[in-house]
Amino acid sequence: MELSGYISLCITGSEVLNGFVLDTNTRFFASEFYKAGFEVRESRILRDDPRAILNSWEEFYQRGDIIVNAGGLGPTRDDLTVDLLCQWLNRRPVMVQEAEEKIRRLFQEKKERGMTMKYSLEVALRQARIPEGCIALPNPVGLAPGIFVPEKNFFALPGFPIEIEGIWPSLWQYLDKEKLQKYHTRELPVWSYGESALFAEIHPPEEIEMGVHALPFGCRLFFRSQNERLLDEFFTSLKERYYGLTQESPLKSFAQWAMANNKKVALAESCTGGLFAKEFTDIPGISAIFLGGVVSYANEIKMSFLGLPEEILKTHGAVSAPCAKAMAEGALLRFGADISVSFTGIAGPGGGTPKKPVGTLYIGLATKGEETLIGKFFYDFGRARFRQAACATAALVLYQKFVLAPHKNLRDLPLGNQFLPIERYLE
Amino acid sequence: MELSGYISLCITGSEVLNGFVLDTNTRFFASEFYKAGFEVRESRILRDDPRAILNSWEEFYQRGDIIVNAGGLGPTRDDLTVDLLCQWLNRRPVMVQEAEEKIRRLFQEKKERGMTMKYSLEVALRQARIPEGCIALPNPVGLAPGIFVPEKNFFALPGFPIEIEGIWPSLWQYLDKEKLQKYHTRELPVWSYGESALFAEIHPPEEIEMGVHALPFGCRLFFRSQNERLLDEFFTSLKERYYGLTQESPLKSFAQWAMANNKKVALAESCTGGLFAKEFTDIPGISAIFLGGVVSYANEIKMSFLGLPEEILKTHGAVSAPCAKAMAEGALLRFGADISVSFTGIAGPGGGTPKKPVGTLYIGLATKGEETLIGKFFYDFGRARFRQAACATAALVLYQKFVLAPHKNLRDLPLGNQFLPIERYLE
Repeated sequence: MELSGYISLCITGSEVLNGFVLDTNTRFFASEFYKAGFEVRESRILRDDPRAILNSWEEFYQRGDIIVNAGGLGPTRDDLTVDLLCQWLNRRPVMVQEAEEKIRRLFQEKKERGMTMKYSLEVALRQARIPEGCIALPNPVGLAPGIFVPEKNFFALPGFPIEIEGIWPSLWQYLDKEKLQKYHTRELPVWSYGESALFAEIHPPEEIEMGVHALPFGCRLFFRSQNERLLDEFFTSLKERYYGLTQESPLKSFAQWAMANNKKVALAESCTGGLFAKEFTDIPGISAIFLGGVVSYANEIKMSFLGLPEEILKTHGAVSAPCAKAMAEGALLRFGADISVSFTGIAGPGGGTPKKPVGTLYIGLATKGEETLIGKFFYDFGRARFRQAACATAALVLYQKFVLAPHKNLRDLPLGNQFLPIERYLE
Repeated sequence: MELSGYISLCITGSEVLNGFVLDTNTRFFASEFYKAGFEVRESRILRDDPRAILNSWEEFYQRGDIIVNAGGLGPTRDDLTVDLLCQWLNRRPVMVQEAEEKIRRLFQEKKERGMTMKYSLEVALRQARIPEGCIALPNPVGLAPGIFVPEKNFFALPGFPIEIEGIWPSLWQYLDKEKLQKYHTRELPVWSYGESALFAEIHPPEEIEMGVHALPFGCRLFFRSQNERLLDEFFTSLKERYYGLTQESPLKSFAQWAMANNKKVALAESCTGGLFAKEFTDIPGISAIFLGGVVSYANEIKMSFLGLPEEILKTHGAVSAPCAKAMAEGALLRFGADISVSFTGIAGPGGGTPKKPVGTLYIGLATKGEETLIGKFFYDFGRARFRQAACATAALVLYQKFVLAPHKNLRDLPLGNQFLPIERYLE
């Protein structure tokens, strides 16, 4: 069979079509293949129905596609892949020695610890089978090996995403990459820009195809082309154009900088309600530089925990530049930190006023020995996205001010240039 | 064409097969149809390729399936659905008046506000077309109406999940529900139980089919059967068996109770790093009862912000029942709250010791005028899932103690019964 140069995916498992499980495998495969410049023609999600599965495999094979099947390699009666492959190839199943030993070892260990297993050893050993003459792809995460059937251009993988990722490098080595590669590709996040704005601003040359995927506070851009030199030139120009906004994870970059420079960080969160602290503490090892934060939802707490003067609440209100400044400076002082960030705003759906509508946000950035900067934003995106945008904005300015500062002035960086001293808000 | 009683889904859009977008529509459709007792036979994800799409529609039609197609109703050249339908049906496109007016109105409004549009009016109006003789399904969220083609048992919907949800009720009214319904169904979350434990404990009668979907700290159980009486009996017995663990959102139920009873809440988070505050403040209107919280990552902060005696840190360490108690009581006092919750533990990957390994967790629950309760848990699930489990555990005990307390004693409820006074930890 001559190869078409396309890949077809087959995702098996009734649980997906009953709505119990979200299929993320199609996206994983599609994304990996896209990055390599390959093209996926179709992804077909099927119940554990022998005839439907066999018919699809044969159809994909007849049109010359590389076939990647996910699911059906477990030990239960629903797991049909090996038996169907044996039927399709007219072969008998054989045991993969490494896989068999792994299963026997696991059962022995569990038995010694007095644990009961979900299945009997006999049932579990079904996972060590592959059709005779096929190639086993080692599974470093689970029990069932993947299977490569060279004469059918067919790969079988388990259904669990984590096992697929583990087997992936083995699959990759058997792919006919020369036959599959159609494009060169590049990708890039651009923070703080929406889809329409990017489509309006970016006009790639005809030879370059552009794709956009919306992120919580920005977009990821994808480009592919057969002309790699042109692609590189264009890509470099884009990175310059959106300088300061294209770091993969601004928050992690800032955290690494703070750890390397032993700068202690504190937070004062109102409208974000702990989300920034949560995102910051998602980073392992952050306790080396993160002192803590106050989620000051009630105004009395802003006063008692952060030393916010009541005067500011009376004159300017809790959602104001002076309040953001006082919160950040209060946190800096009371936590004994080098850098602190404060958030105050109106996430909605309630709480807006004509002068301070839902979506109003102030972020304060206090640095020991420096003038506090305040940014004012309006993110009228709904409660959840408002909070995400607020945290992403803070992450960007921290990255720009501390990681990029030696190279560029914050005033010259997009978004960072919106952080100003308090005088600018009281004019 | 006689109906098969099955549904086939067609998801179109090259962006899905390029890996830019995760297809969540299959899950939405599958889940909605499953709940109604219907069965989805297949979901086919295709590129914006006319021949592939037309062939699949015809194949699905020939086997008697109801067809639900998502995607391809936008204004761009990639959006093929209406043109392909016209070709398939041999009809010409006609304008849907309401949709046309909506688009014209939108363009007028944007023009008045001086905004530029992504597309010209002429291009945008392509979205108001449907094939002659078909039924338009009103779209309350976006511009393109859905389309029902009765003689092909075919529904076309846009690709955006939010628009699909908006059109869903209109689609539903045209479904041949009698022909489709094969089962009665029930579903139920069971918190704090893993998949294997539930499979080991629950053995439904043969007439009832069970499905399990893992949640961050529990599972969702799905049941379907043709025997509704048996299903109801079985379902009722399950709800009794897992009493206290089957509330849809324990945290929201607690929050509603606290709002109704004006009980003010404060938090003291260490290992959860603000995640509980974030989840609590995801609930709109929570500011009525949520005073705030301290994320006390550093030990000095536990002392300065929560009044934790240094003695406790020296004698018992930060990850201990006495520390959890002092943190909760400190938050109760300093925030002036009625109820407070504290978290201290080791999320990992680093920071574990032989006596206090990664996964160790203490939760403190202080209530004004009552003895503080402390729960000790061991969640060796990795950093992210440890934090989720910690917050879910706290939500469950809040729900059990305050919402269920009038009916049952916390001591008699699973998980709640693991919250004990401090003496039990110092024996």
